[in-house]
Amino acid sequence: MIGVTYAKGFRAAGVVAGQRTGDGPDLALVVNVGAHPSAAAVFTANRFAAAPVLWSRNVMASGATPTVAVLNSGGANACTGIDGMAQTAATAQQAAEVIGRQSGQVLVCSTGLIGKLLNLDPLLAGVRSAAATMSADGGADAARAIMTTDTYPKTVELDLAGWRVGGMAKGAGMIAPGLATLLVVVTTDALTDNATAQRALAQAAEATFNRIDVDGCMSTNDTLILLASGESGVRVTQDDLAKAVTEACHNLSQQCIGDAEGASHEIAITVEGATSEDAALTVARAIARSNLFKCAVFGNDPNWGRILSAAGTVPPEAAPFEADEVDVSINGVMVCKGGGVGEPREGVVMAGQRRVDVRVDLHAGVADATIYTNDLTYDYVKENAEYSS
Amino acid sequence: MIGVTYAKGFRAAGVVAGQRTGDGPDLALVVNVGAHPSAAAVFTANRFAAAPVLWSRNVMASGATPTVAVLNSGGANACTGIDGMAQTAATAQQAAEVIGRQSGQVLVCSTGLIGKLLNLDPLLAGVRSAAATMSADGGADAARAIMTTDTYPKTVELDLAGWRVGGMAKGAGMIAPGLATLLVVVTTDALTDNATAQRALAQAAEATFNRIDVDGCMSTNDTLILLASGESGVRVTQDDLAKAVTEACHNLSQQCIGDAEGASHEIAITVEGATSEDAALTVARAIARSNLFKCAVFGNDPNWGRILSAAGTVPPEAAPFEADEVDVSINGVMVCKGGGVGEPREGVVMAGQRRVDVRVDLHAGVADATIYTNDLTYDYVKENAEYSS
Repeated sequence: MIGVTYAKGFRAAGVVAGQRTGDGPDLALVVNVGAHPSAAAVFTANRFAAAPVLWSRNVMASGATPTVAVLNSGGANACTGIDGMAQTAATAQQAAEVIGRQSGQVLVCSTGLIGKLLNLDPLLAGVRSAAATMSADGGADAARAIMTTDTYPKTVELDLAGWRVGGMAKGAGMIAPGLATLLVVVTTDALTDNATAQRALAQAAEATFNRIDVDGCMSTNDTLILLASGESGVRVTQDDLAKAVTEACHNLSQQCIGDAEGASHEIAITVEGATSEDAALTVARAIARSNLFKCAVFGNDPNWGRILSAAGTVPPEAAPFEADEVDVSINGVMVCKGGGVGEPREGVVMAGQRRVDVRVDLHAGVADATIYTNDLTYDYVKENAEYSS
Repeated sequence: MIGVTYAKGFRAAGVVAGQRTGDGPDLALVVNVGAHPSAAAVFTANRFAAAPVLWSRNVMASGATPTVAVLNSGGANACTGIDGMAQTAATAQQAAEVIGRQSGQVLVCSTGLIGKLLNLDPLLAGVRSAAATMSADGGADAARAIMTTDTYPKTVELDLAGWRVGGMAKGAGMIAPGLATLLVVVTTDALTDNATAQRALAQAAEATFNRIDVDGCMSTNDTLILLASGESGVRVTQDDLAKAVTEACHNLSQQCIGDAEGASHEIAITVEGATSEDAALTVARAIARSNLFKCAVFGNDPNWGRILSAAGTVPPEAAPFEADEVDVSINGVMVCKGGGVGEPREGVVMAGQRRVDVRVDLHAGVADATIYTNDLTYDYVKENAEYSS
């Protein structure tokens, strides 16, 4: 039992539902069958939120406790107007009907090309088929069904003191702060309530998915869901829940970075010596978004000048520091000291290293933060020139 | 006579000065020999401003009228500390000495790899050789000497009513708002004064170089200089000067976009129907910085979903608009209408078209603005993975 069915009280399935051009599975269903369910969700901040995001936001706002999540790949159902909303509603209604719930308890997620309606009939048939085949062993199938350009399904399983957390994620493309991956479902058999779950999930998202940034692009469909079944019988504190969900989300977000489109390096950018965590994050994000720096990493070039020039675009009020006090280390070698030349760049080993560690010390305070990103490669360009999303 | 020597009262040269690895010319000299000189300059906002930028800013702040510009490629002299400052000062002193001016009248510009000192002796020898060979015909040589990854020298020549404007630019890489190209020198034989020239230049920069954005990266060395000799005898109004300098800068900035590293398309993103010009610019810049959109253009894919999803990341307070009122046209075809599906995307012709026109109508007001950028290609990644800057 892996992924979303690792914790007790969940059924899942992954089936073919006619949305993809190939024949892989493209519809996942996750059902919380616990007697004491609770739920939480976080959505994209994009102003062109997709129909399923608008729907699912309404579900959460209604105060209901959703116990079902339907997720499809092969189409984002974004920028599809009222017809797109009708498709999402029909999907939720179909799931509610065959599972025996209210449609207001069904969260819907979609991923794929923007601006195209889904193929509704095969989608609804897929929902029926998923409901018929879902099982306590369906986590792996569900994780596979939500993949788009992912090269492998991403799941997580954690054992806590008498309770469990599981999860799945897809997201190798439009990953950015705001919310960092397209679709994530985390499940737990802990006993909790909606308000506690929401606070724990928000905290986890901020510390994990909001700190990975593959290409600075925020999706119209990003959705992160937490479902709790209560089936372990263990009532958890908000802190314990937040800690476990953060660990699960960290694991999944690192898998997303590891499988980012076309990447040859994973880059951890830690900014330390900042006046505040926000200041550290702002500088780290500016570096993570420099195409020049990311190309240099692809070329195994420890180009600290591109790191400084990216950091230098942050306004002083957003991150106070003095240019001539900044140190930069790449893979442990302090190539820049006091804003100038440090150790010889020849000492930095990057070729053959999947992981690149960049540390920038602003020497302005004691706060730090890390953003995770990737290099910019031929393959990133290729995938995104040839694959429509 | 082309480029910086097109207007009367200027001498220029481009010589070999030992900074590059190849044997091309790498030092340009521009001297204003007019009897009534004036000058203006705009610099990068990057907090890691290079030594030549710090030097030249001081020259401008001193109230002096600079009449000499020394520009080298092959090294940025950025993040080089006090030794770098000494190299810039020595360069200015050498130029002042051989030309017969004060070092406080010499502007210095550098472009190339960050974090490496220049080769001072050959540089100073280059300054002497440039001073010995400069002529009223040297504009072409000067434009060639400042090239880095540019594939051709960029010059401009304008004829006004009895006066002229000329100029040269290099900049195919670190181009972004804030200031959009590494090195630009515009010359005119108009009769004006420093304050008028400065206002005209600032206005021109805002309307041209600040509206091109190749990769969102702002250089440590960006410098835009205006030198006026007064030799035409024609005293110009600020409006006339601003208009002519804007035209020259527009021409040069479009050449930079046309020659941007590895680009296969030039993209003009016009946002109209905005509540203010700033709002239009903010949305246009967000689109221009979407790697996903820029990859789609490389793939000749009229992917309006990526345009909307980039626009959707702009906070409502920065650009008020309703998601379901936004139209998007690509090369004249309205592929998105009211935030949803419009004309068939098959109708958009992009393959074989160097220029791509994107128009986004927010339907929120009457202001508009255009940002110029490029697609993201294999060759961009290749150049920036293999070329250190």
